[in-house]
Amino acid sequence: MQTRDVEYKHGPDLLEGFLAFDDNKAGRRPGILLFPEWYGVAHHAKARAKMLAELGYVAFAADMYGKGVRPTEFDDCAREAAKYQRDRQLMRGRGRAGLRDGADLSGVVTFHANLNTPRPEDAKNIKGKVLVLHGADDPIVPEAEVLAFEKEMRDAKVDWQLMSYGSTVHSFTNWDLDSDHSRPAAYNMKSDARSWVAMRAFFDEIFT
Amino acid sequence: MQTRDVEYKHGPDLLEGFLAFDDNKAGRRPGILLFPEWYGVAHHAKARAKMLAELGYVAFAADMYGKGVRPTEFDDCAREAAKYQRDRQLMRGRGRAGLRDGADLSGVVTFHANLNTPRPEDAKNIKGKVLVLHGADDPIVPEAEVLAFEKEMRDAKVDWQLMSYGSTVHSFTNWDLDSDHSRPAAYNMKSDARSWVAMRAFFDEIFT
Repeated sequence: MQTRDVEYKHGPDLLEGFLAFDDNKAGRRPGILLFPEWYGVAHHAKARAKMLAELGYVAFAADMYGKGVRPTEFDDCAREAAKYQRDRQLMRGRGRAGLRDGADLSGVVTFHANLNTPRPEDAKNIKGKVLVLHGADDPIVPEAEVLAFEKEMRDAKVDWQLMSYGSTVHSFTNWDLDSDHSRPAAYNMKSDARSWVAMRAFFDEIFT
Repeated sequence: MQTRDVEYKHGPDLLEGFLAFDDNKAGRRPGILLFPEWYGVAHHAKARAKMLAELGYVAFAADMYGKGVRPTEFDDCAREAAKYQRDRQLMRGRGRAGLRDGADLSGVVTFHANLNTPRPEDAKNIKGKVLVLHGADDPIVPEAEVLAFEKEMRDAKVDWQLMSYGSTVHSFTNWDLDSDHSRPAAYNMKSDARSWVAMRAFFDEIFT
């Protein structure tokens, strides 16, 4: 397993992502671009990148915030994430910088992602397949947001799927959180395992 | 592969299901009780039972209607299905008769199932895990019905998951239908394949 921090730029801004791949595997293999939760490229994101590398992918955890910007406290995370939530062009630019070589996306998988957009009409530009893995009790991604997202996908004729996991709130894959489901965000071991299986099946489909 | 028609009774009513299993496989294996679409135990249901047997399960396609009652025309199907939609005690009794030995259910998978119930409070009796595979554009199972079902599951603290497949209407696994997605019911090869993969992953989970 090879891992390394990788510096790259978005305009004038220096970013630092995290690359992981299995150097015992020969040949070309699909690349996975991983966008972390609002903690940025911290240890949970890095651990997931390594898990993806173990599956045989080249995984790159992209940096949205800038090198060294790694908030840990709620308020700091919220403030940092809000910069990109508010400025979607900036968010998209940062995302595209992480893609680096301009490759087309075969698909997108989200784990407990926010699903809102100020520009639903842009969904017509989505060429890859979309798999949304969602906590059915996630108060941060409420039912109205899910329904609006479904409408957005439907109107744009995207190839989309959305899995709702019962008794599951935000951040359900993040084992750094406790499992108290009465909180807005909590780890859920069952939904974590199920969503990982669903991701793998989706990768098997899109990378054949 | 062994297949056979199996007569059994629900009270005074004679039913005829269809059993399939792979006799080249030794030892005990999980049983799958398959409830067909409104065509009853016809050739699509039988083909699915055989596909399940090939996966190593003992599959039994249950008869809801009674031996020889195998409607093929829309009006006949609708009339026959409505008997059980209207009388849920009768529906449940028929279902339980198909289970035959009273075994607990480890889980339930539905493919484009109706999700309504006159007695949502009964969901508290559900002990197995529930996986719902749903066409996001299914006019026969509209959004309000899906949301009511989710509330039912949530309130009863069932272990549930619901996958919505985009651009997919009712009967999406039924290859006897054409693929005209503008109709209320149509075959969808992609959603058929994806839902079968999801079912297999679910079985791997519940039967370990």
